Amino acid sequence: MTQNLTQLGEKKLLQELKKYMGNAEEIIRTFSEDTAVIDPGGRSYQLYTVDSLVEGVHFRREYMPFFYVGRKAIKVNLSDIASMGGTPNYYLVSLGLPPDTPVQVIEDIYEGMYSVAKEHNVHLIGGNVSASAQLFIDITVIGTVLKNKIVQRNGARNGDPIFVTGQLGSSAVGLNLLKEGFRLLGDGLIFPKKERDSHLVQEAILNHIDPPCLIDLAQKLALTSTVTSMIDLSDGLCPDLTEICRESKVGARLESEKLPIAPAALYWERKRNRDPRILALHGGEDYHLLFTVNRKFREIFMRRIKPLKIMVYEIGQIVPRPEGIQVVDAEGKSHSLEDGFQHFQVKQ
Amino acid sequence: MTQNLTQLGEKKLLQELKKYMGNAEEIIRTFSEDTAVIDPGGRSYQLYTVDSLVEGVHFRREYMPFFYVGRKAIKVNLSDIASMGGTPNYYLVSLGLPPDTPVQVIEDIYEGMYSVAKEHNVHLIGGNVSASAQLFIDITVIGTVLKNKIVQRNGARNGDPIFVTGQLGSSAVGLNLLKEGFRLLGDGLIFPKKERDSHLVQEAILNHIDPPCLIDLAQKLALTSTVTSMIDLSDGLCPDLTEICRESKVGARLESEKLPIAPAALYWERKRNRDPRILALHGGEDYHLLFTVNRKFREIFMRRIKPLKIMVYEIGQIVPRPEGIQVVDAEGKSHSLEDGFQHFQVKQ
Repeated sequence: MTQNLTQLGEKKLLQELKKYMGNAEEIIRTFSEDTAVIDPGGRSYQLYTVDSLVEGVHFRREYMPFFYVGRKAIKVNLSDIASMGGTPNYYLVSLGLPPDTPVQVIEDIYEGMYSVAKEHNVHLIGGNVSASAQLFIDITVIGTVLKNKIVQRNGARNGDPIFVTGQLGSSAVGLNLLKEGFRLLGDGLIFPKKERDSHLVQEAILNHIDPPCLIDLAQKLALTSTVTSMIDLSDGLCPDLTEICRESKVGARLESEKLPIAPAALYWERKRNRDPRILALHGGEDYHLLFTVNRKFREIFMRRIKPLKIMVYEIGQIVPRPEGIQVVDAEGKSHSLEDGFQHFQVKQ
Repeated sequence: MTQNLTQLGEKKLLQELKKYMGNAEEIIRTFSEDTAVIDPGGRSYQLYTVDSLVEGVHFRREYMPFFYVGRKAIKVNLSDIASMGGTPNYYLVSLGLPPDTPVQVIEDIYEGMYSVAKEHNVHLIGGNVSASAQLFIDITVIGTVLKNKIVQRNGARNGDPIFVTGQLGSSAVGLNLLKEGFRLLGDGLIFPKKERDSHLVQEAILNHIDPPCLIDLAQKLALTSTVTSMIDLSDGLCPDLTEICRESKVGARLESEKLPIAPAALYWERKRNRDPRILALHGGEDYHLLFTVNRKFREIFMRRIKPLKIMVYEIGQIVPRPEGIQVVDAEGKSHSLEDGFQHFQVKQ
């Protein structure tokens, strides 16, 4: 192979690397970019996940306070455990730091991680610190899930309705606004120019900088025993749905009119003469849950979540694999879709 | 705090970060830079460790083939599990890669890791790949150890003899030779100039590039049930002995004439008019084991390792804490020592 990473693409690389994965009997599921499942015997599985935030790739210090870098770094990992219905228990942190990094920066990162971990009773058990030209935070999270409550990505079946747990596109708008010069400073927002709709700016930037933490929500959904597949929306609706479809060997049909588009995405994308649905379909890092429900248990699911006050949006349906992933518009016209987001198209 | 990392130093930073560590009942030991111990119930502990290799800090691609980068990256982690007497079971790999990285480089790294992991029946269960300006490899290893066989760093007591399992200083000489332009190319070595003692060059460079893997040796030592503390020699004899002394709340007296100095260190350091004992005391990355034996069981220990054909060198004795760490020379003169090696003094 003489290709480089940009040419090959991250998803394909991770497929290539599957050949190195272990195949011992107790290894239920190895992974690339999400969660490994080990059966240690007993009633629960062990879950393991690892993910990094790299400065200049996943965030820039100009617009992301390090406290929030820490919060986000652990949230993206907890999110992977959560989307299997799991409970995170422990985390390990490996930091790469330029030698001139002020100690306060490291304290801020640890305080940020701790603020999230404490809330969810997740314990730091180890850490490594290494010199590095570029700041990176690599977190491993260890969790458990009851064997009969695990939700994976491979359980979606033809006819299953597709849901998301929140409005889409807000984080992507937030990132765009940060690139345009809007900033979060101190406890509030300071704008470089007057903006009428400052609450929409604030909402979008906060969703990007401090996304929701999905643990409680995902566990409640898993406990309904009706969810057939689940994933957290990190890469974006289309790429993450593609992942469910690949793992479950199915296709999907989304109804574009049913997509819950965040008000900030509606406002800002229209203002820029762009179709906000594109951002809802392809914008990354909203960190809501995308899941499917057994088509036979749709009503039971709805009854079970009602007292829990969980807001869900039904956005489409699983279809047979040959149909691929399609988006049907208001006129019933069908559009097929490409994967949206790849880390190697450096995004910051 | 307005200090930066270089001013504070890595060891002190890791002490600072201890305040964020979890304190749940089942957490037997949290860590900085080595291994966490969790009690899941039953007869064994779970062990967790994480460590990184960063290009330009821990290796340079000019002299370190990526296959060996992969081997070393996993060995330094397995080594931490091993030095507690544990058995590594699984590993997770988080790679940071410049987008123009040839795919072959990634394959080489994975092949290297796999070549070590396979030999020791350790299974890859997950991986993450992230864009990064600088190449880094961050590995988490998960292992187990029988509760009654665990060896920690805090068990050394006054009078315990101190041992190492191999000759010292070779890896540090190897690194110096690499910096001077000696290279490992293909299966052998190509030198920029004629060298009479080429086998010493080869030995030193190979020890730096492909250090020993300690799993079997460490387990055999732990099974003698006479070892009171153990650590792998990653930072160097003095810094690693300092770690044992700090954790065990003791001091140590080394006898400089008993230090097993690697022939390469003897030859090259004398050639450069330097005292090879300095390198033996402070040179990093030999990846032998440093351990203490219960002073009452010294003879039992010797009897038990004899049939196993384990080579050990007795280099000194644990003393009361107030004496600190001292090196006694042939004339009986005592020298006190500073910590040698800190990652933030960038070493490549």
